[in-house]
Amino acid sequence: MIDLDGTVYRGSEKIPAARRFVERLQAAQLPFLFLTNNTTKTPAAVVQNLADNHQISVRPDQIYTPSLATVSYLKAKNHGDLHGKSVYVIGELGLVSALLDAGMVLNETDPDYVVVGLDYDVTYHKFEVATLAIRQGSTFIGTNADTNLPNEHGLVPGAGSVIAMVERATQQTATYIGKPEPIIVQAALSVLGREAAQVLLVGDNYETDIRAGINANVDQLLVYTGVSKPAVVATKAQQPTYQINSLDEWQL
Amino acid sequence: MIDLDGTVYRGSEKIPAARRFVERLQAAQLPFLFLTNNTTKTPAAVVQNLADNHQISVRPDQIYTPSLATVSYLKAKNHGDLHGKSVYVIGELGLVSALLDAGMVLNETDPDYVVVGLDYDVTYHKFEVATLAIRQGSTFIGTNADTNLPNEHGLVPGAGSVIAMVERATQQTATYIGKPEPIIVQAALSVLGREAAQVLLVGDNYETDIRAGINANVDQLLVYTGVSKPAVVATKAQQPTYQINSLDEWQL
Repeated sequence: MIDLDGTVYRGSEKIPAARRFVERLQAAQLPFLFLTNNTTKTPAAVVQNLADNHQISVRPDQIYTPSLATVSYLKAKNHGDLHGKSVYVIGELGLVSALLDAGMVLNETDPDYVVVGLDYDVTYHKFEVATLAIRQGSTFIGTNADTNLPNEHGLVPGAGSVIAMVERATQQTATYIGKPEPIIVQAALSVLGREAAQVLLVGDNYETDIRAGINANVDQLLVYTGVSKPAVVATKAQQPTYQINSLDEWQL
Repeated sequence: MIDLDGTVYRGSEKIPAARRFVERLQAAQLPFLFLTNNTTKTPAAVVQNLADNHQISVRPDQIYTPSLATVSYLKAKNHGDLHGKSVYVIGELGLVSALLDAGMVLNETDPDYVVVGLDYDVTYHKFEVATLAIRQGSTFIGTNADTNLPNEHGLVPGAGSVIAMVERATQQTATYIGKPEPIIVQAALSVLGREAAQVLLVGDNYETDIRAGINANVDQLLVYTGVSKPAVVATKAQQPTYQINSLDEWQL
Protein backbone atom coordinates (compact mmCIF):
# COMPACT_ATOMS: atom_id res chain seq x y z
CA MET A 1 0.00 0.00 0.00
CA ILE A 2 1.56 3.22 -1.18
CA ASP A 3 0.53 6.75 -0.24
CA LEU A 4 0.42 9.26 -3.11
CA ASP A 5 1.02 12.94 -2.26
CA GLY A 6 4.43 13.34 -0.60
CA THR A 7 5.40 9.77 -1.50
CA VAL A 8 4.82 9.34 -5.26
CA TYR A 9 4.69 13.06 -6.11
CA ARG A 10 4.67 16.38 -4.28
CA GLY A 11 1.66 18.26 -5.68
CA SER A 12 2.61 18.75 -9.32
CA GLU A 13 6.29 18.02 -8.62
CA LYS A 14 7.71 14.67 -9.72
CA ILE A 15 9.54 12.23 -7.43
CA PRO A 16 11.53 10.14 -9.97
CA ALA A 17 12.57 7.51 -7.38
CA ALA A 18 8.88 6.80 -6.83
CA ARG A 19 8.32 6.14 -10.54
CA ARG A 20 11.28 3.76 -10.55
CA PHE A 21 9.92 2.07 -7.39
CA VAL A 22 6.52 1.49 -9.03
CA GLU A 23 8.21 0.15 -12.18
CA ARG A 24 10.24 -2.30 -10.09
CA LEU A 25 7.05 -3.46 -8.35
CA GLN A 26 5.40 -3.95 -11.74
CA ALA A 27 8.43 -5.81 -13.16
CA ALA A 28 8.46 -8.10 -10.11
CA GLN A 29 4.66 -8.55 -10.40
CA LEU A 30 4.23 -7.59 -6.75
CA PRO A 31 0.63 -6.50 -6.11
CA PHE A 32 0.18 -2.97 -4.79
CA LEU A 33 -2.53 -0.43 -4.11
CA PHE A 34 -2.21 3.35 -3.93
CA LEU A 35 -3.76 4.34 -0.62
CA THR A 36 -4.60 8.07 -0.54
CA ASN A 37 -6.75 10.19 1.81
CA ASN A 38 -7.86 12.30 -1.16
CA THR A 39 -11.61 11.81 -1.64
CA THR A 40 -12.15 14.56 -4.19
CA LYS A 41 -11.12 12.68 -7.35
CA THR A 42 -12.36 9.43 -8.87
CA PRO A 43 -9.85 6.57 -9.30
CA ALA A 44 -9.98 7.22 -13.07
CA ALA A 45 -8.94 10.84 -12.53
CA VAL A 46 -6.10 9.79 -10.22
CA VAL A 47 -4.86 7.29 -12.86
CA GLN A 48 -5.01 10.02 -15.50
CA ASN A 49 -2.97 12.40 -13.35
CA LEU A 50 -0.34 9.71 -12.63
CA ALA A 51 -0.06 8.91 -16.34
CA ASP A 52 -0.08 12.47 -17.69
CA ASN A 53 2.06 14.21 -15.07
CA HIS A 54 4.22 11.50 -13.49
CA GLN A 55 4.68 8.84 -16.22
CA ILE A 56 3.27 6.20 -13.88
CA SER A 57 0.92 3.76 -15.54
CA VAL A 58 -1.56 1.97 -13.29
CA ARG A 59 -5.18 0.79 -13.38
CA PRO A 60 -8.14 2.49 -11.61
CA ASP A 61 -8.58 -0.59 -9.40
CA GLN A 62 -5.10 0.11 -8.01
CA ILE A 63 -6.31 3.38 -6.43
CA TYR A 64 -7.95 3.17 -3.01
CA THR A 65 -9.50 6.16 -1.24
CA PRO A 66 -11.68 6.90 1.82
CA SER A 67 -14.55 7.26 -0.67
CA LEU A 68 -14.20 3.58 -1.61
CA ALA A 69 -13.43 2.57 1.97
CA THR A 70 -16.62 4.33 3.11
CA VAL A 71 -18.59 2.20 0.66
CA SER A 72 -16.83 -0.91 1.96
CA TYR A 73 -17.51 0.09 5.57
CA LEU A 74 -21.19 0.84 4.92
CA LYS A 75 -21.63 -2.40 2.96
CA ALA A 76 -20.27 -4.33 5.94
CA LYS A 77 -22.94 -2.65 8.08
CA ASN A 78 -25.69 -3.51 5.57
CA HIS A 79 -25.23 -7.20 4.68
CA GLY A 80 -23.10 -6.26 1.69
CA ASP A 81 -25.75 -4.27 -0.16
CA LEU A 82 -26.23 -0.50 -0.19
CA HIS A 83 -28.93 -0.32 -2.90
CA GLY A 84 -31.69 1.97 -1.73
CA LYS A 85 -29.82 3.16 1.37
CA SER A 86 -29.89 6.94 1.51
CA VAL A 87 -27.12 9.41 2.09
CA TYR A 88 -26.50 13.14 2.29
CA VAL A 89 -22.99 14.05 1.16
CA ILE A 90 -20.73 17.02 1.78
CA GLY A 91 -17.95 16.23 -0.66
CA GLU A 92 -16.58 16.34 -4.17
CA LEU A 93 -17.21 14.12 -7.21
CA GLY A 94 -14.87 11.34 -6.04
CA LEU A 95 -16.94 10.84 -2.90
CA VAL A 96 -20.40 11.35 -4.37
CA SER A 97 -19.76 9.03 -7.32
CA ALA A 98 -18.39 6.22 -5.11
CA LEU A 99 -21.55 6.30 -2.98
CA LEU A 100 -23.91 6.51 -5.97
CA ASP A 101 -22.02 3.74 -7.80
CA ALA A 102 -22.69 1.52 -4.79
CA GLY A 103 -26.44 2.03 -5.27
CA MET A 104 -27.04 4.64 -2.58
CA VAL A 105 -29.57 7.40 -3.21
CA LEU A 106 -29.18 11.05 -2.28
CA ASN A 107 -31.56 12.37 0.37
CA GLU A 108 -31.49 15.69 2.18
CA THR A 109 -34.36 15.27 4.61
CA ASP A 110 -33.94 11.94 6.43
CA PRO A 111 -30.91 10.09 5.05
CA ASP A 112 -29.64 6.88 6.66
CA TYR A 113 -26.13 8.34 6.54
CA VAL A 114 -24.45 11.72 6.37
CA VAL A 115 -20.97 11.44 4.86
CA VAL A 116 -18.76 14.52 5.23
CA GLY A 117 -15.45 15.09 3.47
CA LEU A 118 -13.50 17.84 1.76
CA ASP A 119 -15.80 20.00 -0.38
CA TYR A 120 -14.50 23.10 -2.14
CA ASP A 121 -18.10 24.17 -2.73
CA VAL A 122 -19.31 23.73 0.82
CA THR A 123 -21.86 26.33 1.93
CA TYR A 124 -23.84 27.13 5.07
CA HIS A 125 -26.81 25.39 3.45
CA LYS A 126 -24.92 22.09 3.18
CA PHE A 127 -23.80 22.40 6.81
CA GLU A 128 -27.38 23.10 7.84
CA VAL A 129 -28.79 20.07 6.00
CA ALA A 130 -26.07 17.77 7.42
CA THR A 131 -26.56 19.13 10.94
CA LEU A 132 -30.34 18.73 10.93
CA ALA A 133 -30.12 15.19 9.53
CA ILE A 134 -27.54 14.02 12.08
CA ARG A 135 -29.44 15.65 14.95
CA GLN A 136 -32.53 13.74 13.75
CA GLY A 137 -30.72 10.40 13.79
CA SER A 138 -28.67 9.93 10.60
CA THR A 139 -25.35 8.14 11.14
CA PHE A 140 -22.40 10.55 10.85
CA ILE A 141 -19.37 9.43 8.82
CA GLY A 142 -16.22 11.53 8.27
CA THR A 143 -14.04 10.51 5.34
CA ASN A 144 -10.74 11.49 6.96
CA ALA A 145 -9.45 13.64 9.79
CA ASP A 146 -6.73 15.62 7.95
CA THR A 147 -7.07 19.16 9.30
CA ASN A 148 -5.17 20.73 6.38
CA LEU A 149 -3.81 20.18 2.93
CA PRO A 150 -1.26 22.24 1.06
CA ASN A 151 -2.03 24.42 -1.94
CA GLU A 152 -0.02 27.13 -3.67
CA HIS A 153 -0.95 29.64 -0.93
CA GLY A 154 -0.22 27.52 2.16
CA LEU A 155 -2.03 25.05 4.39
CA VAL A 156 -5.75 25.32 3.69
CA PRO A 157 -8.69 23.58 5.41
CA GLY A 158 -8.89 19.81 4.91
CA ALA A 159 -11.69 17.30 5.40
CA GLY A 160 -11.10 17.25 9.16
CA SER A 161 -11.87 20.98 9.37
CA VAL A 162 -15.09 20.61 7.38
CA ILE A 163 -16.07 17.72 9.66
CA ALA A 164 -15.20 19.82 12.76
CA MET A 165 -17.95 22.28 11.85
CA VAL A 166 -20.54 19.49 11.72
CA GLU A 167 -19.19 17.94 14.92
CA ARG A 168 -19.54 21.24 16.79
CA ALA A 169 -23.04 21.77 15.39
CA THR A 170 -24.25 18.25 16.24
CA GLN A 171 -22.28 17.67 19.45
CA GLN A 172 -21.31 14.32 17.92
CA THR A 173 -18.01 12.88 16.76
CA ALA A 174 -17.88 11.39 13.26
CA THR A 175 -16.82 7.82 12.55
CA TYR A 176 -13.61 8.39 10.56
CA ILE A 177 -12.67 6.11 7.68
CA GLY A 178 -9.36 7.33 6.18
CA LYS A 179 -5.80 7.02 7.43
CA PRO A 180 -4.78 6.81 10.30
CA GLU A 181 -7.94 4.80 11.02
CA PRO A 182 -7.53 1.04 10.58
CA ILE A 183 -10.88 0.93 8.70
CA ILE A 184 -9.37 1.99 5.37
CA VAL A 185 -6.33 -0.28 5.80
CA GLN A 186 -8.48 -3.31 6.55
CA ALA A 187 -10.69 -2.55 3.54
CA ALA A 188 -7.56 -2.19 1.37
CA LEU A 189 -6.21 -5.53 2.63
CA SER A 190 -9.44 -7.11 1.54
CA VAL A 191 -9.10 -5.55 -1.95
CA LEU A 192 -5.50 -6.80 -2.19
CA GLY A 193 -6.55 -10.22 -0.89
CA ARG A 194 -3.66 -10.25 1.57
CA GLU A 195 -3.22 -10.53 5.35
CA ALA A 196 -1.79 -7.64 7.38
CA ALA A 197 1.46 -9.54 7.91
CA GLN A 198 2.02 -9.85 4.14
CA VAL A 199 1.80 -6.13 3.42
CA LEU A 200 3.98 -3.03 3.74
CA LEU A 201 2.44 0.45 4.03
CA VAL A 202 4.63 3.09 2.36
CA GLY A 203 4.13 6.79 3.13
CA ASP A 204 5.69 10.16 3.97
CA ASN A 205 3.43 11.23 6.85
CA TYR A 206 3.91 9.77 10.32
CA GLU A 207 0.54 11.00 11.61
CA THR A 208 -1.55 9.50 8.81
CA ASP A 209 0.42 6.78 6.97
CA ILE A 210 2.59 5.37 9.71
CA ARG A 211 -0.13 5.54 12.36
CA ALA A 212 -2.52 3.79 9.95
CA GLY A 213 -0.03 0.94 9.64
CA ILE A 214 0.51 0.79 13.40
CA ASN A 215 -3.24 0.83 14.05
CA ALA A 216 -3.86 -2.00 11.55
CA ASN A 217 -0.77 -4.08 12.44
CA VAL A 218 0.76 -3.56 9.00
CA ASP A 219 4.52 -2.92 8.72
CA GLN A 220 5.37 0.64 7.70
CA LEU A 221 8.03 2.19 5.49
CA LEU A 222 8.48 5.93 6.11
CA VAL A 223 10.11 7.76 3.21
CA TYR A 224 11.37 11.27 3.91
CA THR A 225 10.14 12.92 0.71
CA GLY A 226 7.11 14.68 2.16
CA VAL A 227 5.58 15.92 5.40
CA SER A 228 7.48 14.12 8.18
CA LYS A 229 11.02 15.02 9.23
CA PRO A 230 13.49 12.60 10.89
CA ALA A 231 14.03 14.81 13.96
CA VAL A 232 10.30 14.85 14.75
CA VAL A 233 9.78 11.16 14.00
CA ALA A 234 12.70 10.34 16.34
CA THR A 235 10.62 11.70 19.24
CA LYS A 236 7.68 9.34 18.61
CA ALA A 237 7.07 6.56 21.12
CA GLN A 238 6.40 4.05 18.34
CA GLN A 239 8.95 4.10 15.51
CA PRO A 240 8.12 3.14 11.91
CA THR A 241 9.21 -0.39 10.95
CA TYR A 242 11.55 1.05 8.29
CA GLN A 243 12.75 4.58 7.41
CA ILE A 244 14.49 5.71 4.20
CA ASN A 245 15.29 8.96 2.43
CA SER A 246 14.42 7.80 -1.08
CA LEU A 247 12.45 4.91 -2.54
CA ASP A 248 15.60 4.11 -4.59
CA GLU A 249 17.06 2.76 -1.34
CA TRP A 250 14.36 0.09 -0.98
CA GLN A 251 15.29 -3.41 -2.15
CA LEU A 252 12.34 -5.49 -3.29
CA MET B 1 -28.98 44.20 30.39
CA ILE B 2 -31.70 42.16 28.73
CA ASP B 3 -31.27 39.25 26.36
CA LEU B 4 -33.56 39.23 23.33
CA ASP B 5 -34.42 35.81 21.80
CA GLY B 6 -36.07 33.59 24.43
CA THR B 7 -36.45 36.54 26.81
CA VAL B 8 -38.19 39.37 24.89
CA TYR B 9 -39.54 37.18 22.07
CA ARG B 10 -39.27 33.61 20.86
CA GLY B 11 -38.34 33.86 17.18
CA SER B 12 -41.39 35.52 15.66
CA GLU B 13 -43.54 34.68 18.70
CA LYS B 14 -44.42 37.48 21.12
CA ILE B 15 -43.79 37.39 24.89
CA PRO B 16 -46.31 40.01 26.16
CA ALA B 17 -44.83 40.07 29.69
CA ALA B 18 -41.53 41.20 28.16
CA ARG B 19 -43.19 44.12 26.41
CA ARG B 20 -44.82 45.14 29.70
CA PHE B 21 -41.45 44.76 31.47
CA VAL B 22 -39.75 47.08 28.97
CA GLU B 23 -42.60 49.59 29.28
CA ARG B 24 -42.22 49.58 33.07
CA LEU B 25 -38.47 50.18 32.71
CA GLN B 26 -39.17 53.07 30.36
CA ALA B 27 -41.82 54.54 32.67
CA ALA B 28 -39.40 54.33 35.61
CA GLN B 29 -36.63 55.81 33.46
CA LEU B 30 -34.33 52.94 34.38
CA PRO B 31 -31.52 52.67 31.83
CA PHE B 32 -31.27 49.33 30.00
CA LEU B 33 -29.48 47.73 27.09
CA PHE B 34 -30.57 44.75 25.01
CA LEU B 35 -27.65 42.34 25.08
CA THR B 36 -27.91 39.76 22.29
CA ASN B 37 -25.42 37.28 20.79
CA ASN B 38 -26.94 37.86 17.34
CA THR B 39 -24.29 39.48 15.12
CA THR B 40 -26.14 39.18 11.84
CA LYS B 41 -28.34 42.30 12.09
CA THR B 42 -27.50 45.95 12.63
CA PRO B 43 -28.92 47.69 15.73
CA ALA B 44 -31.26 49.60 13.39
CA ALA B 45 -32.65 46.33 12.02
CA VAL B 46 -33.12 44.93 15.54
CA VAL B 47 -35.00 48.10 16.56
CA GLN B 48 -37.20 47.80 13.47
CA ASN B 49 -38.03 44.17 14.28
CA LEU B 50 -38.89 45.03 17.90
CA ALA B 51 -41.15 47.88 16.76
CA ASP B 52 -42.83 46.09 13.87
CA ASN B 53 -43.32 42.64 15.37
CA HIS B 54 -43.29 43.10 19.13
CA GLN B 55 -44.61 46.63 19.74
CA ILE B 56 -41.46 47.47 21.69
CA SER B 57 -40.07 50.91 20.97
CA VAL B 58 -36.38 51.45 21.68
CA ARG B 59 -33.42 53.32 20.19
CA PRO B 60 -30.55 51.70 18.19
CA ASP B 61 -28.09 52.71 20.94
CA GLN B 62 -30.04 50.44 23.29
CA ILE B 63 -29.01 47.34 21.28
CA TYR B 64 -25.65 45.78 22.10
CA THR B 65 -24.18 42.86 20.15
CA PRO B 66 -20.87 40.95 19.85
CA SER B 67 -20.32 42.98 16.65
CA LEU B 68 -20.21 46.19 18.71
CA ALA B 69 -18.35 44.50 21.56
CA THR B 70 -15.72 43.30 19.06
CA VAL B 71 -15.20 46.92 18.01
CA SER B 72 -14.92 47.95 21.66
CA TYR B 73 -12.45 45.12 22.38
CA LEU B 74 -10.29 45.92 19.35
CA LYS B 75 -10.32 49.64 20.15
CA ALA B 76 -9.02 48.87 23.65
CA LYS B 77 -6.14 46.95 22.00
CA ASN B 78 -5.39 49.88 19.65
CA HIS B 79 -5.35 53.03 21.79
CA GLY B 80 -9.01 53.67 21.05
CA ASP B 81 -8.64 54.03 17.29
CA LEU B 82 -9.26 51.39 14.62
CA HIS B 83 -8.93 53.64 11.56
CA GLY B 84 -6.72 51.90 9.01
CA LYS B 85 -6.57 48.62 10.93
CA SER B 86 -7.40 45.77 8.58
CA VAL B 87 -9.77 42.86 9.00
CA TYR B 88 -11.06 39.83 7.16
CA VAL B 89 -14.61 38.96 8.17
CA ILE B 90 -16.69 35.82 8.00
CA GLY B 91 -20.06 37.22 8.99
CA GLU B 92 -23.25 39.00 8.04
CA LEU B 93 -24.04 42.67 7.54
CA GLY B 94 -24.38 43.40 11.26
CA LEU B 95 -20.80 42.34 11.89
CA VAL B 96 -19.22 43.77 8.74
CA SER B 97 -20.90 47.15 9.12
CA ALA B 98 -19.88 47.49 12.80
CA LEU B 99 -16.23 46.90 11.86
CA LEU B 100 -16.33 49.23 8.84
CA ASP B 101 -18.16 51.93 10.81
CA ALA B 102 -15.24 51.86 13.26
CA GLY B 103 -12.84 52.74 10.43
CA MET B 104 -11.44 49.28 9.75
CA VAL B 105 -10.63 48.29 6.18
CA LEU B 106 -11.29 44.90 4.60
CA ASN B 107 -8.22 42.89 3.62
CA GLU B 108 -8.02 39.28 2.48
CA THR B 109 -4.27 38.81 2.17
CA ASP B 110 -2.64 40.02 5.40
CA PRO B 111 -5.29 41.49 7.72
CA ASP B 112 -4.44 42.52 11.29
CA TYR B 113 -7.53 40.64 12.46
CA VAL B 114 -9.75 37.82 11.29
CA VAL B 115 -13.21 38.06 12.85
CA VAL B 116 -15.44 35.00 12.45
CA GLY B 117 -19.14 34.84 13.23
CA LEU B 118 -22.34 33.39 11.88
CA ASP B 119 -22.48 33.72 8.09
CA TYR B 120 -25.32 32.19 6.08
CA ASP B 121 -23.24 32.70 2.93
CA VAL B 122 -20.05 31.10 4.22
CA THR B 123 -18.14 29.13 1.58
CA TYR B 124 -14.94 27.09 1.41
CA HIS B 125 -13.25 30.14 -0.11
CA LYS B 126 -13.98 32.26 2.97
CA PHE B 127 -12.70 29.48 5.23
CA GLU B 128 -9.56 29.24 3.13
CA VAL B 129 -8.84 32.99 3.26
CA ALA B 130 -9.44 33.10 7.04
CA THR B 131 -7.28 30.02 7.63
CA LEU B 132 -4.35 31.29 5.57
CA ALA B 133 -4.46 34.72 7.23
CA ILE B 134 -4.55 33.33 10.76
CA ARG B 135 -1.79 30.83 9.99
CA GLN B 136 0.28 33.77 8.72
CA GLY B 137 -0.20 35.75 11.93
CA SER B 138 -3.55 37.57 11.90
CA THR B 139 -5.25 37.69 15.31
CA PHE B 140 -8.26 35.35 15.45
CA ILE B 141 -11.49 36.67 17.01
CA GLY B 142 -14.71 34.66 17.34
CA THR B 143 -17.88 36.68 17.87
CA ASN B 144 -19.64 34.11 20.08
CA ALA B 145 -19.43 30.43 20.90
CA ASP B 146 -23.09 29.42 20.42
CA THR B 147 -22.93 26.06 18.66
CA ASN B 148 -26.51 26.23 17.41
CA LEU B 149 -29.49 28.44 16.88
CA PRO B 150 -33.09 27.44 16.24
CA ASN B 151 -34.90 27.91 12.95
CA GLU B 152 -38.15 26.47 11.66
CA HIS B 153 -36.42 23.14 10.86
CA GLY B 154 -34.54 22.59 14.13
CA LEU B 155 -31.19 23.48 15.65
CA VAL B 156 -28.89 24.67 12.87
CA PRO B 157 -25.20 25.64 13.02
CA GLY B 158 -24.40 28.78 15.00
CA ALA B 159 -21.35 31.05 15.09
CA GLY B 160 -19.48 28.58 17.32
CA SER B 161 -19.74 25.89 14.64
CA VAL B 162 -18.43 28.22 11.93
CA ILE B 163 -15.58 29.18 14.25
CA ALA B 164 -14.88 25.49 14.99
CA MET B 165 -13.99 24.93 11.33
CA VAL B 166 -11.41 27.73 11.44
CA GLU B 167 -10.10 26.54 14.80
CA ARG B 168 -9.53 23.03 13.44
CA ALA B 169 -7.88 24.39 10.29
CA THR B 170 -5.56 26.77 12.17
CA GLN B 171 -4.94 24.70 15.30
CA GLN B 172 -5.74 27.88 17.23
CA THR B 173 -8.56 28.82 19.58
CA ALA B 174 -10.41 32.07 18.87
CA THR B 175 -10.72 34.87 21.39
CA TYR B 176 -14.49 34.89 22.01
CA ILE B 177 -16.36 38.15 22.61
CA GLY B 178 -20.07 37.33 23.12
CA LYS B 179 -21.91 35.84 26.09
CA PRO B 180 -20.88 33.96 28.24
CA GLU B 181 -17.55 35.80 27.94
CA PRO B 182 -17.16 38.75 30.32
CA ILE B 183 -15.77 40.86 27.43
CA ILE B 184 -19.20 41.77 26.07
CA VAL B 185 -20.65 42.40 29.54
CA GLN B 186 -17.79 44.72 30.50
CA ALA B 187 -18.17 46.59 27.20
CA ALA B 188 -21.92 46.89 27.82
CA LEU B 189 -21.31 48.22 31.35
CA SER B 190 -19.15 50.88 29.83
CA VAL B 191 -21.92 51.83 27.36
CA LEU B 192 -24.45 51.97 30.21
CA GLY B 193 -22.00 53.97 32.35
CA ARG B 194 -22.64 51.69 35.32
CA GLU B 195 -20.61 49.43 37.62
CA ALA B 196 -21.20 45.66 37.67
CA ALA B 197 -22.84 45.92 41.12
CA GLN B 198 -25.47 48.36 39.81
CA VAL B 199 -26.70 46.14 36.98
CA LEU B 200 -28.93 43.08 36.52
CA LEU B 201 -28.49 40.73 33.54
CA VAL B 202 -31.82 39.25 32.40
CA GLY B 203 -31.91 36.18 30.18
CA ASP B 204 -33.44 32.79 29.44
CA ASN B 205 -30.27 30.77 28.80
CA TYR B 206 -28.14 29.53 31.70
CA GLU B 207 -25.14 28.68 29.50
CA THR B 208 -24.89 32.08 27.80
CA ASP B 209 -26.80 34.72 29.80
CA ILE B 210 -26.41 33.51 33.35
CA ARG B 211 -22.79 32.41 32.87
CA ALA B 212 -22.02 35.81 31.33
CA GLY B 213 -23.33 37.49 34.47
CA ILE B 214 -21.43 35.10 36.74
CA ASN B 215 -18.22 35.62 34.75
CA ALA B 216 -18.55 39.43 34.93
CA ASN B 217 -19.80 39.62 38.55
CA VAL B 218 -23.17 40.99 37.46
CA ASP B 219 -26.34 39.73 39.20
CA GLN B 220 -28.50 37.54 36.99
CA LEU B 221 -32.23 37.09 36.57
CA LEU B 222 -33.16 33.85 34.80
CA VAL B 223 -36.61 33.90 33.23
CA TYR B 224 -38.03 30.54 32.16
CA THR B 225 -39.49 31.63 28.82
CA GLY B 226 -36.76 30.21 26.58
CA VAL B 227 -33.95 27.65 26.46
CA SER B 228 -33.22 26.75 30.08
CA LYS B 229 -35.48 24.54 32.19
CA PRO B 230 -35.72 24.65 36.02
CA ALA B 231 -34.83 20.96 36.47
CA VAL B 232 -31.56 21.39 34.56
CA VAL B 233 -30.66 24.71 36.19
CA ALA B 234 -31.23 23.11 39.62
CA THR B 235 -28.25 20.81 38.93
CA LYS B 236 -25.82 23.70 38.30
CA ALA B 237 -23.14 24.35 40.91
CA GLN B 238 -23.69 28.09 40.71
CA GLN B 239 -27.34 29.19 40.84
CA PRO B 240 -28.66 32.36 39.16
CA THR B 241 -29.16 35.29 41.57
CA TYR B 242 -32.89 35.29 40.77
CA GLN B 243 -35.23 32.94 38.88
CA ILE B 244 -38.78 33.66 37.67
CA ASN B 245 -41.30 32.19 35.25
CA SER B 246 -42.47 35.47 33.71
CA LEU B 247 -41.14 39.00 33.62
CA ASP B 248 -44.53 40.06 35.03
CA GLU B 249 -43.32 38.65 38.36
CA TRP B 250 -40.40 41.07 38.56
CA GLN B 251 -40.92 44.14 40.77
CA LEU B 252 -38.88 47.15 39.70
